[in-house]
Amino acid sequence: MSGTDSSASRSACNSKGSMIVVSNRLPFILKRNEKTGELERKASAGGLVTAVAPVVIRGSGIWVGWPGIHLDDPNEKIPESNPNDKTPTAGLLSEKIVPIHAEPKLFDSYYNGCCNGTFWPLFHSMPDRATFIADHWKAYIKCNEEFAEKTVHALHLLKQQKGKNGNSPPIVWVHDYHLMLAANWIRQRAEEDEIKCKLAFFLHIPFPPWDIFRLFPWSDEVLQGILGCDMVGFHITDYCLNFIDCCQRNLGCRVDRKNLLVELGGRTICVRPLPIGVPFDRFVQLAQNAKPVLSTNQQVILGVDRLDYTKGLVHRLKAFERLLEKYPEHIEKVVLLQISVPSRTDVKEYQDLKEEMDQLVGRINGRFTTPNWSPIRYIYGCVGQDELAAFYRDAAVALVTPLRDGMNLVAKEFVACQINKPPGVLIVSPFAGAGEMMHEALICNPYELDDAAEVIHRALIMPEDERTVRMNHLRRREQLNDVDSWMKAFLKAMDSLEEEADDIGATSMQPVTIDDFDEYLSKYIGYTQKLALLLDYDGTLAPIAPHPDLATLPLETKHTLQRLSNMSDVYIAIISGRNVDNVKNMVGIEGITYAGNHGLEILHPDGSKFVHPMPMELQDAVVKLLKALQEQAKRAALAEQARKLITEAGFTPAPAHCALEARPPVEWDKGRASIYILRTAFGLDWSERIRIIYAGDDVTDEDAMLALKGMAATFRIASSNITKTSAERRLSSTDSVLAMLKWVERHFSRRKPRANSLTYKNARKARDTIQMHMSYQMPAKTSPRHTPPLTPDKTSSGSESS
Amino acid sequence: MSGTDSSASRSACNSKGSMIVVSNRLPFILKRNEKTGELERKASAGGLVTAVAPVVIRGSGIWVGWPGIHLDDPNEKIPESNPNDKTPTAGLLSEKIVPIHAEPKLFDSYYNGCCNGTFWPLFHSMPDRATFIADHWKAYIKCNEEFAEKTVHALHLLKQQKGKNGNSPPIVWVHDYHLMLAANWIRQRAEEDEIKCKLAFFLHIPFPPWDIFRLFPWSDEVLQGILGCDMVGFHITDYCLNFIDCCQRNLGCRVDRKNLLVELGGRTICVRPLPIGVPFDRFVQLAQNAKPVLSTNQQVILGVDRLDYTKGLVHRLKAFERLLEKYPEHIEKVVLLQISVPSRTDVKEYQDLKEEMDQLVGRINGRFTTPNWSPIRYIYGCVGQDELAAFYRDAAVALVTPLRDGMNLVAKEFVACQINKPPGVLIVSPFAGAGEMMHEALICNPYELDDAAEVIHRALIMPEDERTVRMNHLRRREQLNDVDSWMKAFLKAMDSLEEEADDIGATSMQPVTIDDFDEYLSKYIGYTQKLALLLDYDGTLAPIAPHPDLATLPLETKHTLQRLSNMSDVYIAIISGRNVDNVKNMVGIEGITYAGNHGLEILHPDGSKFVHPMPMELQDAVVKLLKALQEQAKRAALAEQARKLITEAGFTPAPAHCALEARPPVEWDKGRASIYILRTAFGLDWSERIRIIYAGDDVTDEDAMLALKGMAATFRIASSNITKTSAERRLSSTDSVLAMLKWVERHFSRRKPRANSLTYKNARKARDTIQMHMSYQMPAKTSPRHTPPLTPDKTSSGSESS
Repeated sequence: MSGTDSSASRSACNSKGSMIVVSNRLPFILKRNEKTGELERKASAGGLVTAVAPVVIRGSGIWVGWPGIHLDDPNEKIPESNPNDKTPTAGLLSEKIVPIHAEPKLFDSYYNGCCNGTFWPLFHSMPDRATFIADHWKAYIKCNEEFAEKTVHALHLLKQQKGKNGNSPPIVWVHDYHLMLAANWIRQRAEEDEIKCKLAFFLHIPFPPWDIFRLFPWSDEVLQGILGCDMVGFHITDYCLNFIDCCQRNLGCRVDRKNLLVELGGRTICVRPLPIGVPFDRFVQLAQNAKPVLSTNQQVILGVDRLDYTKGLVHRLKAFERLLEKYPEHIEKVVLLQISVPSRTDVKEYQDLKEEMDQLVGRINGRFTTPNWSPIRYIYGCVGQDELAAFYRDAAVALVTPLRDGMNLVAKEFVACQINKPPGVLIVSPFAGAGEMMHEALICNPYELDDAAEVIHRALIMPEDERTVRMNHLRRREQLNDVDSWMKAFLKAMDSLEEEADDIGATSMQPVTIDDFDEYLSKYIGYTQKLALLLDYDGTLAPIAPHPDLATLPLETKHTLQRLSNMSDVYIAIISGRNVDNVKNMVGIEGITYAGNHGLEILHPDGSKFVHPMPMELQDAVVKLLKALQEQAKRAALAEQARKLITEAGFTPAPAHCALEARPPVEWDKGRASIYILRTAFGLDWSERIRIIYAGDDVTDEDAMLALKGMAATFRIASSNITKTSAERRLSSTDSVLAMLKWVERHFSRRKPRANSLTYKNARKARDTIQMHMSYQMPAKTSPRHTPPLTPDKTSSGSESS
Repeated sequence: MSGTDSSASRSACNSKGSMIVVSNRLPFILKRNEKTGELERKASAGGLVTAVAPVVIRGSGIWVGWPGIHLDDPNEKIPESNPNDKTPTAGLLSEKIVPIHAEPKLFDSYYNGCCNGTFWPLFHSMPDRATFIADHWKAYIKCNEEFAEKTVHALHLLKQQKGKNGNSPPIVWVHDYHLMLAANWIRQRAEEDEIKCKLAFFLHIPFPPWDIFRLFPWSDEVLQGILGCDMVGFHITDYCLNFIDCCQRNLGCRVDRKNLLVELGGRTICVRPLPIGVPFDRFVQLAQNAKPVLSTNQQVILGVDRLDYTKGLVHRLKAFERLLEKYPEHIEKVVLLQISVPSRTDVKEYQDLKEEMDQLVGRINGRFTTPNWSPIRYIYGCVGQDELAAFYRDAAVALVTPLRDGMNLVAKEFVACQINKPPGVLIVSPFAGAGEMMHEALICNPYELDDAAEVIHRALIMPEDERTVRMNHLRRREQLNDVDSWMKAFLKAMDSLEEEADDIGATSMQPVTIDDFDEYLSKYIGYTQKLALLLDYDGTLAPIAPHPDLATLPLETKHTLQRLSNMSDVYIAIISGRNVDNVKNMVGIEGITYAGNHGLEILHPDGSKFVHPMPMELQDAVVKLLKALQEQAKRAALAEQARKLITEAGFTPAPAHCALEARPPVEWDKGRASIYILRTAFGLDWSERIRIIYAGDDVTDEDAMLALKGMAATFRIASSNITKTSAERRLSSTDSVLAMLKWVERHFSRRKPRANSLTYKNARKARDTIQMHMSYQMPAKTSPRHTPPLTPDKTSSGSESS
């Protein structure tokens, strides 16, 4: 608890820019002095704060977080630290604190509802305990927005004081499961305000496997939120791989498991294992100075935990009971000292757990107590640092047996304090991050009471040489990997983002190549099926340009499409929001299908045209609307006015690239158009005859991706990582679309030519057969509740010019 | 429900041997006629039985299972089927039935305790609902043994009737999570009795990810039990990969994810996705013939489920409520018909669920009911096949939204019965196997009520063309992949076990090569550390031979060891159960360490020797024991008599290869010896100075693997797959050990020579330093409860001849 700076903080501020830490809680709590009514700081002494605060202070950084109190006046000044405060946060001036103010009910819904009611159990792989409530999720979004806004404010504050900190962009470090959405908003706002920063996220709890994580209904948003950062840290490699799995399977991202990378929206995100440590030397010092507290000649088995259902406390007591049953030689010779720190005492689940514990302690003590000995000493409350260090030092065995735990620092604090010779024994659960790292501990599955009893027995009678070698190894590792070295490893990982590679491997993804499509597409397309390529134009085939007329098709893409259009097994349709003649003009390839106006007009290769019918009154409205719009002159004021005119005319205004579209109130979109095109070309059973690839970059393409879901390979081209999509895969640019088209070309070039080739003529023949199917089907419609379906084959026959 | 044979059964018996099906339940239930007191069969009509029973009958196979009743007289005859019975099991003669008899309490503990209290929730990734109780697990073992024994009996019955079935060995097909341990015992007993058979397992529920599965305290045994089979089937590839992950991470097996293979005990086990189907044509027929039951012009949303917590029924009702809230246009236009089939009604958890459902139905109906309409029709009970087919046929939407489900056949039966045009819409949960396979259904996360309401709304208003194309595709797939085709796929997979490759890929693992060790060992050993190789002799370096004298070291292994012994960074110790001079003689390499008698005597390279001290009285006992043993002449009778003599002399008899060992009652084993050797050679902090590889094939090697756990790379050589081990990896033969040694040689050859080489002399010097450490350490021992540790450095100084 000394106020001296750690070496990490010194090494950090020599070379780096400032750091903004964003965490749910500030590194201290504000309390109102009951006498004076003044706010006062109550310092926190956690290892994390000890390591991070000095780095923030030295770099003149800022801490963003909730002060632990709801203030009536959000402008009430944060007090400076007490002059007697010797904790690492003492140097954190009030001007370097950006407090979060949140409406208490909203904050409760965010914190107790979503964070602790949903993410805590879900991320600990206890899905049955998790609740999934839309209102809690909405509160979570709102509060994350608030944190993001305050962080952007902090970035501005830093910018004003620049110069001081050199030219390195500041690091924004977002912490834990409370703030998984903040990064994207911070990134967006910072970009808008032209403030450079590097974003990092660290999760202090486990990250569950995909099969558990995907239960969360808004799991995509969570992943995208985290991926707003440049670097994402977890305790152990398993959590990293779980996260990468989720990014690939949920979001359709390209990933690199070897180098632990994820690609989203054209950016590479580094995923890194950063196992947190404890302030090892501080604990050694505490242990050296702490007076003995335990006056017993019994072997003490020690447990120290927050009273939480993840900690396996009930299992632990039962295992100890089993020990006394199986090995009565320990009766009167050992004692279990269990310290349970009260937690979330206002939550029913935690109250129930406390009751169960109380009852269990009573029952086991009642069963085994002798006149001068009780087997369990149960402390429900907090314990001071000195006393704790004495317990750690003098215990013969530490039982760290959570049912699930991100890391567990008790295990590490225990070994740090084990300065007695010969040392004691650490028992740790394989379901804690610590269990993965601290190999030399005895591993014990807390669910198996018999085995747990055996392991405790083995620890109690372990020969001194084995105890010594195990504890030496454990202590050495924790000394090397203490919390300062964790801080250093984090800073090093942030540094290496600009480099080619770091300790783990490469820090950026390889560019997309043809081969990248092999795994996904060759499974789907195989060597006998035909393929329909349905492609959006702007942003998919042609890069977005300042003006639609400038969005020309790159030559290489055009040539590739041209060659594809000559392949007998490949059918191509371009589906655009432009008008059909315009898009045909832009692409300029004959013999393929063009759909314009989001599918409202479709031009077949033989020149025949389908135009979706529009009610008479709408046609009049179009004429009037066009006229009205033309009367608008100034471009700047146009948009709002146009929006109004469009709405008045009964259309829906929709923003498009450099345009505002007027969508007619008919149930027709790119999805309906795609199915119409496919059915027209291949018959009612098209989905059995062909494979389909759909690629698009626009929200209007989502209609098609949704309609084709499960029946096509779909790509969403998106350069932003907050895009929500029904597509199965994401691509970051039109270049990647070209690579995909080349994959198709290569794939079909390798195939043997087939006798039954897929010319438009044949396809058209198939369509004729289908229309008969359709007319047979129509009368069978029975359900009166269906919205009368638009059946283009019928309604469009008049407007088709064939 | 026709009695005609399926095509699968015909194709099967043309070419194959008989089949023995082993399932918890027989394909019918026995009931006692209350009037006559006679037993009677009650046929079961499930799809599985429909597909499998004909195959069993045609091949004169046998069905092993519990008859659904506890009989007082286990010899009471199973009645033949009722002459009117037209179900597929009617042809199953009583002589082809092997019923299981189990003590009711034991069976309850097995079935309700372990199967349904543990495996059901755990495998459905609901770990919080699972109980882990040793007694239930013991009952599970016992019952599995009983099933195995009865299956071996069935194999004998088949053998007697051979000739009929050609020479193909019978297939033993074990079903589901009730019987995950049976295969190994069947295999073992069949081998002993020289009966050939092929063993297969199919799991009808999900297989969870490793991170969930590993919670089960006896998870290794479950994996090993399943791996007793030659082929293991799951519904979908995800479950296959979960299982393979577990085999690699829990058992340390070599696996092949691409070809879905696992190696254990020298055998290759094929893991295959075999998604089960329904008797499609039968359901079509039922739907064609079923009279309309629903007389409503409302759109019917249909749910059909067992009343089980995995089915998501509460979520479903709430989602429907949300639909009515958000889209009141559906009020009086739709109705939710929920059929809940009673299940496990004697279990509290299920009673609670029923109460919650009752209450919820009442509340929602109370909220929305109008004079002529109620939103929910809730049937708690069973529904006949015809009625069910009518529901399936006439429903507009089927809601199949389990929280987790292995496959879910309701989704498949629904699409089979959807013969009306235009068709309805299937909504399915992504957490069911069916959700993975039935792409064209609408996918709905049951946890997200808002989204679920949206999806139901979308289904209700889906345009006819989209409904048609989706349903056509769904029906086509289920027709192609019906339950008979599942049966065929299974038989094909069994056939292809003898072939090089099947549809999935290779069916046997590549032999072990040097490169196989790369991933595991190069992470551990790196390019700077030294290595201590601790190796058992018999079964590890030398193949087991009929007599110990014949177990010579293969020349290639000897030469490799010789070269390794000359490398400066490699230290070698051979640790054997033989006496030390004998093992040195067998290996014949100078300059390495030999330990004999499981470490009781250790010969250092410089000729110095450590002998573990033995109490005087034991030394006398040894002399006497030896004399007594020599007086025994006949080898056959020797073992039992020797065991007795050894025990009487105060030693523990332990079986060894071609020998019976007398273990002295001292706390010294290969583990203690290994640590002693390492400390002697490298000092007290040996674990920081060197890397260790330990390889052994014997139970006595487990002492070393346990003692070194977390501090060494450990290999257990085992040709049996029931071996339980503390080793991290398994190898199947001494050949693999040689490959491992060659990896070490290659690895160290590639490294640059180091200045500070690890000769015995240097190591010895290090040891001297350590002994000083030790003598400093000794007095610090404080805890009076420790068993006085054997401290070889002290106690052995007298017997060391240096």
